[in-house]
Amino acid sequence: MAKQTAKLWGGEGLHPLVEAYTVGEDYRIDGECMVPYDLKASDAHAQMLQKIGVLRADELATLQKAFKEIKELWEKGDFKVTISQEDCHTAIEQYITEKYGEVGKKIHTGRSRNDQSMTMIRLFTLDQVKEVQRLARELGSSAQSRAKELQAAPMPGYTHMQRAMPTTVGTWLDSFACGWLDAAKLLDGAFSMLDQNPLGSAAGFGINHLELDREVTTKAMGFAKVQENVMYCGLSRGMFENVALQAMSLPMVLSSRFATDMMMFTQQEALFLALPDEFVTGSSIMPQKKNYDLFEIMRANGKVFGSLQVQIQETIVGLGSGYHRDLQCTKKAFVEACALCTSTLRLLQVVVPALQVREENLKKAMTEDLYVTDEVYKLVAGGKPFREAYAEAKADFFKRKVLYRLQSDVAGLQGGDFLI
Amino acid sequence: MAKQTAKLWGGEGLHPLVEAYTVGEDYRIDGECMVPYDLKASDAHAQMLQKIGVLRADELATLQKAFKEIKELWEKGDFKVTISQEDCHTAIEQYITEKYGEVGKKIHTGRSRNDQSMTMIRLFTLDQVKEVQRLARELGSSAQSRAKELQAAPMPGYTHMQRAMPTTVGTWLDSFACGWLDAAKLLDGAFSMLDQNPLGSAAGFGINHLELDREVTTKAMGFAKVQENVMYCGLSRGMFENVALQAMSLPMVLSSRFATDMMMFTQQEALFLALPDEFVTGSSIMPQKKNYDLFEIMRANGKVFGSLQVQIQETIVGLGSGYHRDLQCTKKAFVEACALCTSTLRLLQVVVPALQVREENLKKAMTEDLYVTDEVYKLVAGGKPFREAYAEAKADFFKRKVLYRLQSDVAGLQGGDFLI
Amino acid sequence: MAKQTAKLWGGEGLHPLVEAYTVGEDYRIDGECMVPYDLKASDAHAQMLQKIGVLRADELATLQKAFKEIKELWEKGDFKVTISQEDCHTAIEQYITEKYGEVGKKIHTGRSRNDQSMTMIRLFTLDQVKEVQRLARELGSSAQSRAKELQAAPMPGYTHMQRAMPTTVGTWLDSFACGWLDAAKLLDGAFSMLDQNPLGSAAGFGINHLELDREVTTKAMGFAKVQENVMYCGLSRGMFENVALQAMSLPMVLSSRFATDMMMFTQQEALFLALPDEFVTGSSIMPQKKNYDLFEIMRANGKVFGSLQVQIQETIVGLGSGYHRDLQCTKKAFVEACALCTSTLRLLQVVVPALQVREENLKKAMTEDLYVTDEVYKLVAGGKPFREAYAEAKADFFKRKVLYRLQSDVAGLQGGDFLI
Amino acid sequence: MAKQTAKLWGGEGLHPLVEAYTVGEDYRIDGECMVPYDLKASDAHAQMLQKIGVLRADELATLQKAFKEIKELWEKGDFKVTISQEDCHTAIEQYITEKYGEVGKKIHTGRSRNDQSMTMIRLFTLDQVKEVQRLARELGSSAQSRAKELQAAPMPGYTHMQRAMPTTVGTWLDSFACGWLDAAKLLDGAFSMLDQNPLGSAAGFGINHLELDREVTTKAMGFAKVQENVMYCGLSRGMFENVALQAMSLPMVLSSRFATDMMMFTQQEALFLALPDEFVTGSSIMPQKKNYDLFEIMRANGKVFGSLQVQIQETIVGLGSGYHRDLQCTKKAFVEACALCTSTLRLLQVVVPALQVREENLKKAMTEDLYVTDEVYKLVAGGKPFREAYAEAKADFFKRKVLYRLQSDVAGLQGGDFLI
Repeated sequence: MAKQTAKLWGGEGLHPLVEAYTVGEDYRIDGECMVPYDLKASDAHAQMLQKIGVLRADELATLQKAFKEIKELWEKGDFKVTISQEDCHTAIEQYITEKYGEVGKKIHTGRSRNDQSMTMIRLFTLDQVKEVQRLARELGSSAQSRAKELQAAPMPGYTHMQRAMPTTVGTWLDSFACGWLDAAKLLDGAFSMLDQNPLGSAAGFGINHLELDREVTTKAMGFAKVQENVMYCGLSRGMFENVALQAMSLPMVLSSRFATDMMMFTQQEALFLALPDEFVTGSSIMPQKKNYDLFEIMRANGKVFGSLQVQIQETIVGLGSGYHRDLQCTKKAFVEACALCTSTLRLLQVVVPALQVREENLKKAMTEDLYVTDEVYKLVAGGKPFREAYAEAKADFFKRKVLYRLQSDVAGLQGGDFLI
Repeated sequence: MAKQTAKLWGGEGLHPLVEAYTVGEDYRIDGECMVPYDLKASDAHAQMLQKIGVLRADELATLQKAFKEIKELWEKGDFKVTISQEDCHTAIEQYITEKYGEVGKKIHTGRSRNDQSMTMIRLFTLDQVKEVQRLARELGSSAQSRAKELQAAPMPGYTHMQRAMPTTVGTWLDSFACGWLDAAKLLDGAFSMLDQNPLGSAAGFGINHLELDREVTTKAMGFAKVQENVMYCGLSRGMFENVALQAMSLPMVLSSRFATDMMMFTQQEALFLALPDEFVTGSSIMPQKKNYDLFEIMRANGKVFGSLQVQIQETIVGLGSGYHRDLQCTKKAFVEACALCTSTLRLLQVVVPALQVREENLKKAMTEDLYVTDEVYKLVAGGKPFREAYAEAKADFFKRKVLYRLQSDVAGLQGGDFLI
Repeated sequence: MAKQTAKLWGGEGLHPLVEAYTVGEDYRIDGECMVPYDLKASDAHAQMLQKIGVLRADELATLQKAFKEIKELWEKGDFKVTISQEDCHTAIEQYITEKYGEVGKKIHTGRSRNDQSMTMIRLFTLDQVKEVQRLARELGSSAQSRAKELQAAPMPGYTHMQRAMPTTVGTWLDSFACGWLDAAKLLDGAFSMLDQNPLGSAAGFGINHLELDREVTTKAMGFAKVQENVMYCGLSRGMFENVALQAMSLPMVLSSRFATDMMMFTQQEALFLALPDEFVTGSSIMPQKKNYDLFEIMRANGKVFGSLQVQIQETIVGLGSGYHRDLQCTKKAFVEACALCTSTLRLLQVVVPALQVREENLKKAMTEDLYVTDEVYKLVAGGKPFREAYAEAKADFFKRKVLYRLQSDVAGLQGGDFLI
Repeated sequence: MAKQTAKLWGGEGLHPLVEAYTVGEDYRIDGECMVPYDLKASDAHAQMLQKIGVLRADELATLQKAFKEIKELWEKGDFKVTISQEDCHTAIEQYITEKYGEVGKKIHTGRSRNDQSMTMIRLFTLDQVKEVQRLARELGSSAQSRAKELQAAPMPGYTHMQRAMPTTVGTWLDSFACGWLDAAKLLDGAFSMLDQNPLGSAAGFGINHLELDREVTTKAMGFAKVQENVMYCGLSRGMFENVALQAMSLPMVLSSRFATDMMMFTQQEALFLALPDEFVTGSSIMPQKKNYDLFEIMRANGKVFGSLQVQIQETIVGLGSGYHRDLQCTKKAFVEACALCTSTLRLLQVVVPALQVREENLKKAMTEDLYVTDEVYKLVAGGKPFREAYAEAKADFFKRKVLYRLQSDVAGLQGGDFLI
């Protein structure tokens, strides 16, 4: 079989630069992530074609056998998609036609690559949203338990990166737990909006002269409902992935902020928290180094994730309705962003239980300035209006500070406990 | 009263460049949008202070009188926030202290500007989310009704901006309606997650020596629940606004895509749709021009909105927990983005009913190529496998096209109906 | 004169929602920033019109008198642009026509609002690029001088936010100075590319039946050359502003990174550097606080600036050639971004000389681990291959560390000098 | 050799999730793109080490032999970097040590992975900037030539996507040519700023007890100068790549805008321009389709490129000085963005000469409304003030239009030539 006739639409004689430019990395992404989802959708489609009389029962059986074979090959890493095939849709149809003949020429009946691709990605999207939700919920729960254990461990509370008021390690860790749990809730809302079956919309205009039964495929794939308007199906490509990513961005933002806290709390200057050696890295030049690279990558991944959101949203914003090849470009960003999100949450699931608390350093850091606000409220409790109490406590604090400085100078000490 | 002592924290002698740089436009935004929300939160706070015995009943009455006064002044445009005051919190407290004395010095008891500001913004956020949801739902419904009227009007369906298959104006318009209605659903999910009261978290570490009753303020302001963890309150500043914006982005993306369709459909080349003169603009040099500037601005606003999302998310991603002044910068972007979203949806509410359909142009555009897929399915209905039917219809189409071209050349006509 | 006939293109009866939506804040920005640039361009245009015989000498004199008047009014804050006028072009032409009659109706001869607006913005752009360049160069030089004074002050060098190897305050400060000076160079390159006169391109298609002399306006405004291709003029709107912003982004990125270093070096945990009281702010609840808000805003402004770049680039990318109203939206972002950049550099010009170095804290922080790499190179100097020297120094360091820990435990001390 | 001891810094027992998360795709990118640049830098480093007496002449010879070997293996696809090696630096050093023993342990003398990696990327960056510049210049020249040939072909000029005034295909194409040529100029400025050698800065703090001769490596690699300040070297990682990308963004923005014009000009509605069949693609369902996918991908790639710029800039903005692992994440985005830019320009180099001009369609589109502005200027030439001429031509045009409509209605024709 000639390579150049590989494509579903023909494509003989396509300029090699055009082929390489338009396909991009799409064939690789399909090959790595999408094959099982296309098989699931194709299976549902075949069942429906059989129900409406396009396929015979034996043809359906053959197709389902082929789908199973391909899935097994893929799981072993032996089902590849080539650049001249462009995508896994072509690769799968070709496999069937070459091996099982005639029936392969029927499987595309009643669908277009548009709805085929969209359905595959929709299934992938729903899986990812569900997985991120599960991970966020589990991480939130486990962080909440750990926080309870650490409820009593004192910790300076910071605002503006300066010591502010006393808090505890438990309160700090629980604040992130609350966030991860709220994120799980948000993902729920997104999931139930996204749970719509686009299969049967064909190229966005349905099919004439053939009565597709969209309820059959909806049930077979486990969708909550048919996405009725066929043009809305087309319009939702990229847009639904965008909704999914935005719902995933809350756990990512939280994780990057957790990472930044960890970078500060593990610095030699503070050393409130630490992780066992298996979590830290070293230097090729400085033998003494123990670095928390995992948190730097986590901090950066929050930004990388954000740029992938931008990539998808900017690609679709201002794009006319109807399929545009631009939409293909949203697939890579989406797959990469999902992987960043799940790998970040999975890593945190092992990090949180491993956190080591350096209580002696925390206690040393609970300096006098953290308690000045308490002085204000003692005065308030005694009946003084807040503003006056504030002014009095402030004057008192700075008087003591000046005195301390004078004494330190005399004694040759360094007044580190008192800011500025 | 000396201007330089205006700030709640003192601030005498602050370098004017530092004041100007750190305050930025925040005082202006507070003055324009935030005063009523701060008053609502302050009222709830005062009620609570009275219940726990910090304020006497007469002091509460005085404060509530003052809040009412300020609200009335603000509604008339007579309550201003100055740059040296920094924010409306200071402006309001100063107004009360100057006019009503002692009681003004008590209103800040048990809160910090952190939770005060956060509560004000949370109330604003919930209002905006609810308003966008209402607008999206109304627009969706009205577009759906209009779509029903236009269900029969034929329209070429486009993919890759090339004519693809037949559709109708109604299907096209309804596809956007579905999106706006789904957006309303998403906003629901976001709203119920965001509906938490941060007041009482003070600077993120609560208050000692004073028992705040956070249920009282929660009920007074109508929140669904207390946001319990005080550090989570702090962590949610900016992050909750980000969640709100992301939920608003779906209607914005849809609107920008609708605008792009309208730009194409109102071009002289197509002229399928039009709007009355009161919607179009002209040129300072070309007397004949009628331009659809509103759709160009709508298309651009989808991108501007996206960059405001980026602004907020990038500001908070990787930021340590605890208050940072960086968070102030999220307020301007948030307020601007909400305004873009509500004004876009309000404009569309008048645009959709005013749409004029040029049926004669639509009919002329229903060219032969739109029906080639139907030929395929007629062959499929006759029992031919899809791939063979596709190949046959394709060969037939291009044969007819070549023939048409030859005839056109002979007749001196131009074969515009046939692509390429 | 009826308000609704205010616009250059007519605009009677425009729907108020369309007017408000399409004009946006453009009239305010024009009124605040653009009037002098439009006057400069209009003056050059009038001179040219007189040279080619469209205006008489006395008409030119009248116009120039009017331009001078408007400039003086504007400088006193007495020249306003209203929303129904849309922009300063209309406001200026109306002022002249109302006050000086007939001649006002001639000033728009041979131009469109497209090239008029573009020329005004180009002049503004070049001014801003030149100003940022000047500020970056001055800041770089002044930081370089300060760095020389501080060359001997020891400072721990950090990688991964962990102590790495010894450096000095001078080397650290000079590294930013180098960046600011390199930024000045980059801005030079951008300036010379951007220095092209678009006036005379009209709506992007020139003018027939009238011979404009574009060299005259080029010389009058001080541009390096005519931007010859009239459609390229149109294409460069927004795109040239994008080039300018990108050249400004280097000093902004540098400044935000400097701010982050300052946040860490001014923490109580380190306290290597400080600023006088006039640079720091306080808290409304915690009397003891001294916060470096200026650096938090500077850090955030680096991100806000980035999102404004995104706003402009995303607005123009994928936009067809020829004027689109979308381009108007780039003006606000551009003006705001320029202001962020110049105000940041101006603030740093007072910050750098005011930096206070806390040598006693710096010296205390020059802990043993910073010198382990030196041990490696002593062994290398003695002839040992690097990898072996590295392994030996590493083993030795961790042996000493374990020993130190044991001793600390016995003595009840806390081994803070040794990481983890 | 145990797998786990592969890393330059040790790394025995690193948690597999931490390894996978921190290395990410870096090993793959190094293996695909960076090996030759690291070899070039290592060769220069070895030459320097020999000159200062760390290596003997025979050791240098051995190393250079090894570098040559590795390069040849790499060119054949036989030199791989594994995930446990993390990067090509480790892979290269291990290859040498395993094959040539002792000398491999010396090659890392006087450098850190920080400056090694930075030098490798700097060399790659300069190569890419030079290549993009070359491509932009060639494309600009070739488009300029093609534009000259097409100077006479009439084309409607559009503003707001509505017909505005007459122009020509040549003027249109030349406007892009001007942009690509200006881009080449900008890239020149960026190149000369970036052309600095960071090798010898080690981990950002230089090396004690060993006198590196940085002029030797600078000369050997062909850099214009040493990047003197060792901390500035560190600070420039990511930041210099950002500068390079920003300079590349002008040709990308231009190309995406060209693509959008092409999408409109190749629509059936206009059909002004076309490309031969080898440039167009088809549909899996609609046999008649010829789609310009290449321009859709080009339009989208402009946005993808923009998001990669965002990714890099947001990763570095607000990052403290000194090496952070976050910086590793800028490598993938940079490599991908460069590839998008060069492949886009290379594709355009074949597209521009292949453009087919459909003169008959262009002529048909030169409708009456395009010439109304000429009517104005005829009146101006006759002495009428511009504003009056404008009003007169406008009134006249709309009068004729109404008349035409009436006649069309009578004749049963469709008044497509007249807008709205």
